[in-house]
Amino acid sequence: MAKETYTPEEPIAAIATALVPAALGIVRTSGKNCIDLVSKAFSRPKALKSAQGNTLVYGWIVDCESGGKIDEVMLGVYRNGKSFTGEEMVEIYCHGGTSTVLGVYNQMLKAGFRAANRGEYTFRAFINGKADLTKAEAVKEIIGAKTDQSRSRAAERLQGALNSEISSIKAELLHQIAAIEVGIEYPEDEHNITEEVDFSALNAINQKLKNLAGSWATEKLYQDGAAVVLCGKTNAGKSSLFNILLKEERAIVSDIHGTTRDWIESWANFDGIPVRLFDTAGLRQTDDVIEQNGVERTKELLPQADLVLYVLDSCAGLSGEDEVFLKELLGENEKTQKVLLVLNKCDKSQNAAALTEELKAKFGDFNSVNVSAKSGTGLRELTNKVASLLQNSQSSENSTIGLGSKRQKQAVEEAIDSLNHALSCAELGFGSDAVVQDIEDALASLGELTGEVTSDDILQSVFSAFCVGK
Amino acid sequence: MAKETYTPEEPIAAIATALVPAALGIVRTSGKNCIDLVSKAFSRPKALKSAQGNTLVYGWIVDCESGGKIDEVMLGVYRNGKSFTGEEMVEIYCHGGTSTVLGVYNQMLKAGFRAANRGEYTFRAFINGKADLTKAEAVKEIIGAKTDQSRSRAAERLQGALNSEISSIKAELLHQIAAIEVGIEYPEDEHNITEEVDFSALNAINQKLKNLAGSWATEKLYQDGAAVVLCGKTNAGKSSLFNILLKEERAIVSDIHGTTRDWIESWANFDGIPVRLFDTAGLRQTDDVIEQNGVERTKELLPQADLVLYVLDSCAGLSGEDEVFLKELLGENEKTQKVLLVLNKCDKSQNAAALTEELKAKFGDFNSVNVSAKSGTGLRELTNKVASLLQNSQSSENSTIGLGSKRQKQAVEEAIDSLNHALSCAELGFGSDAVVQDIEDALASLGELTGEVTSDDILQSVFSAFCVGK
Repeated sequence: MAKETYTPEEPIAAIATALVPAALGIVRTSGKNCIDLVSKAFSRPKALKSAQGNTLVYGWIVDCESGGKIDEVMLGVYRNGKSFTGEEMVEIYCHGGTSTVLGVYNQMLKAGFRAANRGEYTFRAFINGKADLTKAEAVKEIIGAKTDQSRSRAAERLQGALNSEISSIKAELLHQIAAIEVGIEYPEDEHNITEEVDFSALNAINQKLKNLAGSWATEKLYQDGAAVVLCGKTNAGKSSLFNILLKEERAIVSDIHGTTRDWIESWANFDGIPVRLFDTAGLRQTDDVIEQNGVERTKELLPQADLVLYVLDSCAGLSGEDEVFLKELLGENEKTQKVLLVLNKCDKSQNAAALTEELKAKFGDFNSVNVSAKSGTGLRELTNKVASLLQNSQSSENSTIGLGSKRQKQAVEEAIDSLNHALSCAELGFGSDAVVQDIEDALASLGELTGEVTSDDILQSVFSAFCVGK
Repeated sequence: MAKETYTPEEPIAAIATALVPAALGIVRTSGKNCIDLVSKAFSRPKALKSAQGNTLVYGWIVDCESGGKIDEVMLGVYRNGKSFTGEEMVEIYCHGGTSTVLGVYNQMLKAGFRAANRGEYTFRAFINGKADLTKAEAVKEIIGAKTDQSRSRAAERLQGALNSEISSIKAELLHQIAAIEVGIEYPEDEHNITEEVDFSALNAINQKLKNLAGSWATEKLYQDGAAVVLCGKTNAGKSSLFNILLKEERAIVSDIHGTTRDWIESWANFDGIPVRLFDTAGLRQTDDVIEQNGVERTKELLPQADLVLYVLDSCAGLSGEDEVFLKELLGENEKTQKVLLVLNKCDKSQNAAALTEELKAKFGDFNSVNVSAKSGTGLRELTNKVASLLQNSQSSENSTIGLGSKRQKQAVEEAIDSLNHALSCAELGFGSDAVVQDIEDALASLGELTGEVTSDDILQSVFSAFCVGK
């Protein structure tokens, strides 16, 4: 959606709920003369036209031409810009049958609305000043949130926490520019640029921006989730562990596929982190072609994993095959942080401690946890450990407010670059103008973040990732 | 839900939209002090508590305990019984993320609502006199409707067309009772019962009821749809036909499964009739065990079919295998109506007419249609023919108003039985009391249909088939 060529008040309609049979559904309309247009397909046009803003009107959606009854509905009426989009809006709360929702929607198209594009309602909210870009992106985020924690982080941004933080940083930058410009306007005082620039203030602002940029890694973890792969020898207990983890950690989507020889996967909630958990074929040398295929696929999966859970049967101890795989997995220091050894069947085995010693002697330091998939012992420790390893691997700065998208991070990084440049210019004694220009560049980057200054490309990429109806 | 033991105003909450990520979702609450309870988890409790009925209130759903923000929402407020359930209600229009909708719903449970049972909102509408049973069942029907025609038939009932028809029949029956009772009250006139009973009026009422009972077959067809199975030899063009039919007749759900050797299925819209279309393995004698399995499965499917489309390659003509299968399919007169011969590749073939003659000579009369899956010729004729055969097979009486459920049909049939009994009693010259009793029985059956007189068993079976949130 390009800001320049866009016709803002063109009447649009969309189905805003999932097209899956349910009790209720919502068809959303917005634009100029929205109420008059809906009236064409409504059994009580007078009641609707005379309805005040923020009220609910009962009636039937009818066929615009034949007058045939489509569905019994409630209409939510929004007037005078007091709406999500900032335009006149009518939301139709109808029955949730697929054919019913489509029937209501088709009448809106007949009545003169055009089908809304992805994210077009939020785009209008943005161009009408109802939401800045951080809030717009938070809307998209809150719809896709997989866990309560993901949702509450998005809710903070939706509420404007990030926008406030950016605004306060911008105010500080403007204050710095003003201070330097005093020097430019009164050149007779012949201040040295290094005296005019408040290095400590600029550095403090820079640190705030760095914290913000650093926050994205953690936010991304809560937004996109992490891939955790269970692997280990056949019969180590991977599948039992997989199943009990899905059960205990509330599988988010029972999106399991693949065959027994292949890997299967499902989303689970690990301390609020959405985890895509993979169960893989048992790692063993084999002549069976199909099984070999399974092992190969497991190996292909490993580099994509954010964390590998290597499951060992602590009763059986360490086998030659385990050693081969562990050597590969724990080979480099950097890799060690991506592996968690899970010593399973610890309730039956006396030698979990001895095994840990043996492993330490062979592979040095590593993360491990003792569990029993059967009795459930150690599962809480396992999920805590997984969550903490996933968070540590992001090594993010602590920041109460986080960024909501990669786009936002790039804007912050551009602002940091400009500020760094400003600081070097000042240190090298360059002219005030150059320093001010750099700080203004930083301001522009932050303006891009919130959407005050935006190119059509940015708008396009932000809103095209939305769902229809939002 | 039992009417006697039920606590009507107990506060209930439910997620009323599908739990699938979408722009918007709805959480529905109803019951005593509903507004006060929602206020506990709302950022603007004063605004909500002072809101008038049928208004929309902006704010945030917050955690009841911590006050943490859950989601930015609009609340639909319903007061003084002016609501779907006839109770105080608040509908929460929130963002449609799975975690968001669940988060909002969980706060309602924390605030003191209990989870609603299936159909409990409609059940309350029923016990509060907001809807009779025909309307309640129409709500369920409109949610499940697969095509526009299915939906518009349900909408008629939702609007009360069936209820009006039943009411008018009941009024006529009461009129007949009154006329007979005049005779009972003035026995000195010594009328003969056969003179007191208006046979022609009772027969006319009986005919209306029979038309209603007969309407269920057609209504059922639009509600539940029909199973249509494509079969025929390998390479006759079944799969091409299947795919083009799904495309042309708008597949309703792309619910295709099974493997190549097995059958696959999908819903399509044939002139408003929801058709579950099956594509099957090619019927041919084979030594291949897997293929044999496929053929066996096809044969198992045939008895469940409402209509079999036997596809013949008109270029290749009739083979021995075709003859074997057709003999079985067209064997009995009764079966013939359940088969439609589809002569495919008619654009390439000169001998479609000759083939039809040959088939007629061998199998007598049958339904057939010439098509070309490749060019699209004859497809419209095919779907019209399928729809008309499906409707004829129901041989329903023409009735502008139809019944909405098997339960309703049973009630109508009971009323017919009672009326038949009344008519025979009158013909045989039995006492007026017996005739009046029979007519009263008929009235009771119709009362059961609309829900004036209902057992808990009936209510249980009606409402347990609903979805949650309705």
